[in-house]
Amino acid sequence: MAKIILSINAGSSSVKISVFSASQGRSPKQIAETQIDGLTSPPPRLKYTRGSKPIHKGEEVSSKISSQNDAFKHMLDMLIGDPELSEINSKEDVGIACHRVVHGGDYEEPKIIDKETYDHLEVLTDLAPLHNSSALEIVRFCISDLPHTRNIAVFDSQFHHTIPEHIRTYPINQEIARKNKLRKYGFHGISYSFITRSVAEFLGKDIGKTSLIILHLGSGASACAVKDGKSWDTSMGLTPLAGLPGATRSGSVDPSLVFHYASDVGKLSPASTSSLHISRAEEILNKESGWKSLTGTTNFGTIASSSERSHKLAFDILVDRICSYIGSYYVTLHGNVDALVFAGGIGEKSSKLRKRVTEDVGCLGFTIDEEENDKEISGIVQDVGARDARHRTLVCATDEQFEMARLCATDEQLFS
Amino acid sequence: MAKIILSINAGSSSVKISVFSASQGRSPKQIAETQIDGLTSPPPRLKYTRGSKPIHKGEEVSSKISSQNDAFKHMLDMLIGDPELSEINSKEDVGIACHRVVHGGDYEEPKIIDKETYDHLEVLTDLAPLHNSSALEIVRFCISDLPHTRNIAVFDSQFHHTIPEHIRTYPINQEIARKNKLRKYGFHGISYSFITRSVAEFLGKDIGKTSLIILHLGSGASACAVKDGKSWDTSMGLTPLAGLPGATRSGSVDPSLVFHYASDVGKLSPASTSSLHISRAEEILNKESGWKSLTGTTNFGTIASSSERSHKLAFDILVDRICSYIGSYYVTLHGNVDALVFAGGIGEKSSKLRKRVTEDVGCLGFTIDEEENDKEISGIVQDVGARDARHRTLVCATDEQFEMARLCATDEQLFS
Repeated sequence: MAKIILSINAGSSSVKISVFSASQGRSPKQIAETQIDGLTSPPPRLKYTRGSKPIHKGEEVSSKISSQNDAFKHMLDMLIGDPELSEINSKEDVGIACHRVVHGGDYEEPKIIDKETYDHLEVLTDLAPLHNSSALEIVRFCISDLPHTRNIAVFDSQFHHTIPEHIRTYPINQEIARKNKLRKYGFHGISYSFITRSVAEFLGKDIGKTSLIILHLGSGASACAVKDGKSWDTSMGLTPLAGLPGATRSGSVDPSLVFHYASDVGKLSPASTSSLHISRAEEILNKESGWKSLTGTTNFGTIASSSERSHKLAFDILVDRICSYIGSYYVTLHGNVDALVFAGGIGEKSSKLRKRVTEDVGCLGFTIDEEENDKEISGIVQDVGARDARHRTLVCATDEQFEMARLCATDEQLFS
Repeated sequence: MAKIILSINAGSSSVKISVFSASQGRSPKQIAETQIDGLTSPPPRLKYTRGSKPIHKGEEVSSKISSQNDAFKHMLDMLIGDPELSEINSKEDVGIACHRVVHGGDYEEPKIIDKETYDHLEVLTDLAPLHNSSALEIVRFCISDLPHTRNIAVFDSQFHHTIPEHIRTYPINQEIARKNKLRKYGFHGISYSFITRSVAEFLGKDIGKTSLIILHLGSGASACAVKDGKSWDTSMGLTPLAGLPGATRSGSVDPSLVFHYASDVGKLSPASTSSLHISRAEEILNKESGWKSLTGTTNFGTIASSSERSHKLAFDILVDRICSYIGSYYVTLHGNVDALVFAGGIGEKSSKLRKRVTEDVGCLGFTIDEEENDKEISGIVQDVGARDARHRTLVCATDEQFEMARLCATDEQLFS
């Protein structure tokens, strides 16, 4: 029997819900999607598409919405109250709520949320307070207010559980590392899972024989080396801070930097509560750095098209750091690379970035086809590489919410 | 007229002095070298070679030597007191004391130490207390006790002043970055300067047309991309902590890691004084991490030849991180690489590491010649690559003290 799945993706300043109808073992079918963004830069704005019909296109939301959970409740009420969305007429119609949780610790697969799992998710939140807490707030709400709904957590880290020990281990005191669970985890894994499968299909290759260098470039950005269908290395680490710079995130910097930043970075953040310990330094490097700190804008499109000195610097910095990972991952894959794949908002939209990056890694055998690269990206995977290049260059329109629903649809327990 | 130059290299647990006789514009001639090591693992031990004749070969030093300055004074007295070292019979015979200073801030060349320079060196020490303070102690002693000697500082960061803005800039608040001088500086530059010149000579190439990937691998380890004879990128950053792991140094880790390490890492170190602020976290990542934290030993030779699981892991971690930089730097140099160069204690001695690294970056066109690689390294530059490889692989016996003396010998002011 088909069930309604809500794929819930709570970001740092937005919440997205995609609504799917799914039967066990079948590919889920999307019937609606909605999102509220601008939570950290009010007023929040609402988008809603039923089927392929846009209903709201970013109108300001008048009601008082200040948290991710407020946004979730608002959209849930809207979905239930929409008479033309016949599949959801009451809370009871929501069979499965699938929550994207950033940090999954040692979890290697999605987890149905019971008492034990929930308690463990709270522990993990302590490891990544800036990243897990908003999802957890929505999980709590669903447990209390949607008693007929099964809750499942899908982790952004789980795809990376295959990273080998010598890559995931930090060379620090191993007793403390084990005790405090300090190692590379990696994130954006739901996206990398979608991309790996989609690209293997596009190439007509067995996924277990597909090796890729994938760039997920959005306001959070990371890179992943996929070896024979599995994550082999990725640029994020213990938390999403490591690796590439993002809109407000520094990416990797000398770990000593925080001690020289300002005298108050060692203090707790004003946002800390008794249960969450976020140092001011973590907040600065996650929320007040990245290309916004260089240019004043989080909009990478503006940066890429500007000739201002600071914008050009931000663009060059990102290109440099991206190319650095491509070089590293090319080597760690021993040159066995089926394709370089661009994904994420910036990866999909910025043909200029794709061109610069591909040119700068040309010595490895990647070449862009300028005409194909300038075309709008339609479809899930699109070839933008030159026909005679040694390695292919692709763009993939990643879909985390679909991947979450797909993972749910493979789980027998959820349909029993 | 020839002058006596002492090249003084104060490390974290040792002090080396090489004694040169030099005339302006000529290559300095080494007449003696001495070192005391084991300062952090007493008893300290003394080595002394006059000309090519070993006098002391690592005997325990009986006198109370606990600081770098104690060690310096002990060796200076020994040099003056050695009747067979006819060039130095009194303090007055020391014309030039050339001090290796790790962090040189914005200095682009060696500096004669006057009042102004000295004050600035003290400011820099605040930026790198773990790294600059022992050299400064010796500088102070020389100023007060060797009034006839000219003091000059040679900076380990100066070779990297050519790193372009988009590579040296951290994507953080730029106002704070400028005010607190937070950017990539890079270190091991005295060594990279020696190696670049020596390899260009070996290859018979104009140094301005020589591009290299250099690995300086010792208890402190780093990598450098040299483009047309100049530093283009390097793995260390604001401080020597970033980049490759070392004997007791973590290298790059997620900058968030320190906040999850232990509850007391935010505190000041017990070693801090009112004038130096070293956080416990900086101390842990610099002094209690690296391969010692994985294996219990700082001796990389032991690690490389062991089949113990933890030793194998430490070896694999170092190889992984090294290959990662080779991939990055190959790309940033657009494949225009005259040679991959191994240097530093480990780079010179560990044929096993050279073999593994070269094999692992084989897809870039490097190939080892196993027979050449297994030969002992004699001479300054030695070829260990296969004849038919696309790019050459070399080993260079770096000599920081010679490079310091050479830089002094090019300075007219010092001989006026």
